Amino acid sequence: MGERTSRLSRRRAMTLAGTGVAGAVGAAALGGSRSWDRPGTEDHAAAAVPFHGEHQAGITTPAQDRLHFVAFDVITKDRARLVALLQDWSAAAARMTAGRDAGELGAVGGVPQAPPDDTGEALGLPPSQLTLTIGFGPSLFRDAHGRDRFGLADRRPAALAALPRFPGDALRPEISGGDLCVQACANDPQVAVHAIRNLARLGMGVVSVRWSQLGFGRTSSTSRDQATPRNLFGFKDGTANVKAEDDDLAEQLWVQPGDGPEWMTGGSYLVTRKIRMVVETWDRTSLGEQEALIGRTKGSGAPLGRGDEFDELDLELTGPDGEPAIAEQAHVRLAHPSQHNGARLLRRGYNFVDGSDGLGRLDAGLFFIAYQRDPRRQFVPIQTQLARHDLLNEYLRYISSGLFACPPGVRDGADHWGRTLFG
Amino acid sequence: MGERTSRLSRRRAMTLAGTGVAGAVGAAALGGSRSWDRPGTEDHAAAAVPFHGEHQAGITTPAQDRLHFVAFDVITKDRARLVALLQDWSAAAARMTAGRDAGELGAVGGVPQAPPDDTGEALGLPPSQLTLTIGFGPSLFRDAHGRDRFGLADRRPAALAALPRFPGDALRPEISGGDLCVQACANDPQVAVHAIRNLARLGMGVVSVRWSQLGFGRTSSTSRDQATPRNLFGFKDGTANVKAEDDDLAEQLWVQPGDGPEWMTGGSYLVTRKIRMVVETWDRTSLGEQEALIGRTKGSGAPLGRGDEFDELDLELTGPDGEPAIAEQAHVRLAHPSQHNGARLLRRGYNFVDGSDGLGRLDAGLFFIAYQRDPRRQFVPIQTQLARHDLLNEYLRYISSGLFACPPGVRDGADHWGRTLFG
Repeated sequence: MGERTSRLSRRRAMTLAGTGVAGAVGAAALGGSRSWDRPGTEDHAAAAVPFHGEHQAGITTPAQDRLHFVAFDVITKDRARLVALLQDWSAAAARMTAGRDAGELGAVGGVPQAPPDDTGEALGLPPSQLTLTIGFGPSLFRDAHGRDRFGLADRRPAALAALPRFPGDALRPEISGGDLCVQACANDPQVAVHAIRNLARLGMGVVSVRWSQLGFGRTSSTSRDQATPRNLFGFKDGTANVKAEDDDLAEQLWVQPGDGPEWMTGGSYLVTRKIRMVVETWDRTSLGEQEALIGRTKGSGAPLGRGDEFDELDLELTGPDGEPAIAEQAHVRLAHPSQHNGARLLRRGYNFVDGSDGLGRLDAGLFFIAYQRDPRRQFVPIQTQLARHDLLNEYLRYISSGLFACPPGVRDGADHWGRTLFG
Repeated sequence: MGERTSRLSRRRAMTLAGTGVAGAVGAAALGGSRSWDRPGTEDHAAAAVPFHGEHQAGITTPAQDRLHFVAFDVITKDRARLVALLQDWSAAAARMTAGRDAGELGAVGGVPQAPPDDTGEALGLPPSQLTLTIGFGPSLFRDAHGRDRFGLADRRPAALAALPRFPGDALRPEISGGDLCVQACANDPQVAVHAIRNLARLGMGVVSVRWSQLGFGRTSSTSRDQATPRNLFGFKDGTANVKAEDDDLAEQLWVQPGDGPEWMTGGSYLVTRKIRMVVETWDRTSLGEQEALIGRTKGSGAPLGRGDEFDELDLELTGPDGEPAIAEQAHVRLAHPSQHNGARLLRRGYNFVDGSDGLGRLDAGLFFIAYQRDPRRQFVPIQTQLARHDLLNEYLRYISSGLFACPPGVRDGADHWGRTLFG
């Protein structure tokens, strides 16, 4: 669905919503199309991303600016209700990603005696490249008490094994895990929040919000057309990320036939980690030490000893003092594919600031998001190495962790997020 | 300072920051100018707002999309150190609002042996209409223990009297009040967060972050050129707001000579209130009831009984049933200037979502911000009426409150935020 069509749809929904005064509503009030006045509403950032396809959107989609991520606990024991919700969610997701309201009767209901079919705060806003991506957590297959609530235990992929405990983890269970997750990414946070809120509303009695996280600045590029953004250490992040245009997506990103249960073919595994950054300590560290810890220059992002951001790391290079240009424990060396049998990740994390910590410091950091074909040979070995040796750990606190199996894409309006898993 | 000049300044800072490889850094890496790829970087939303002027920017400035608000406790007892910080902050604020880095030596330091003069995460981003607005809290003049730490007790305006306790307040002291506040507004949250973080960094040992709040979607317009945005109840908010073009700003917004101590002339009083919205309950309320509680239609924002958003309320109008079109306890009637001797507020609040509440619900709502000439005859009587009678209170929880005296503008580079108060 094109952007113009979907914007018209939201406008039409608004006229349906009047309570007898629709005829008198001025065109000016309807025509605003988004609630602030930045020029360029026809631009790429405001457009729609197709919801249907071979793979779920929101993985190789060029990383949008904003995130609202939510993990749900399933609170029903009724498998049929859960499947029905996944159907309803898929229909609502298709509507909202096209810039339409979540419901069927017009954006704010149309029926004065009934609750609105949509909460309304995104009325008049364009699609803003909204993507909604679902994942299934290990506890959906067998919960913490060993119960197989939905008859899914034998469908659990081996790749969805619980992550090991890494050295230094200080995970808070109440903001970790979850039976289901939905990643909402958009260029307008109001649009991302609206989508998650309406999915939660539709899920009332079936699911309950376990935790949620807002992110405000992407920290990776997932397309060669995007410039590399900076994380809260002030460094470019994601220069060497897996990108949509790469030729090894089958090897690194998408689950292949024979990898495990067939229902995950075309899907991908998602790891989330909420990483508090002790930015006040970092800010007192010298520029030279910051660059040595990362292994790149802060200004350009070039690997130490090289001149351009996108130059390959030269791990053999030594400086005039005979020492390696990139230190043995530099972050980029420890994480480099050459250290992990070529394993790479598609990262699409976001910065966060959650207020302050009560100790005079900002509660800020990185909400890390990584997609991959198999965490057992990608995230787990890479993170094991980093957790053991990365000197950056002095400035980091790992406080939340999540692992989810994201099924393949929803093919069309008759398909839904739960089809391949629930059959 | 124009946008182009300031962007060039940030670029120049980047070249200063290289560690010997500046010459090899490609023009492409430098020229990105912002870290994502939305077209229109030359547009209005990316431009600079002048920092110097008669009044502080960030009050009548057309409300930007994003907020990072911070309250500080002053931890030094040394008045001279506090004044020196206000001078340093003013210089850094002038630089950052112009799109430059916070320090003097180039954006990320220039000296490998020293900590960078700027934390770096806004490198390459345009000014994004950043404004920084300072306020002084009652506790700066006399603290909770009755101490006059900085010899300011006799300069405290009567209008800066502590707010009364309103019915229903459930304030959390640790996220209320503060000796100082800084409101950072910008169209890019990375720019707003960067500014607050660098002010906090400069204040190390003098001030400590007491609380901070991110906001993601403005909930008022402060200029007739802006469309009215929607709050998380899904309603347009701020239709009848005080706007920059109004002819009663001297009456409603700016402190006038003779109002109180001369140091506040040209300033304004700021009230903040963090209002949790119980959106899950609201979302189960019928459209008709929602509209009756607010007193406006949800779709167009028109007052009930009228046709257009900007039509005046008709408080006398009755419907076919003989009942008032706008109920006696409707929010818009209770807050209307006719009920409060003409008092109005300039609101520029933001939506927030702070994750979830541990009970399966989003922790979401409105961070209310209002500027005014005198809270004693504006915010206090209006809020007293609302706290007593507004049926919306069923869906609201007031969890934080702040009151600050915002001095007049910084006139030029030799002036600073503390001049009128500290003399």
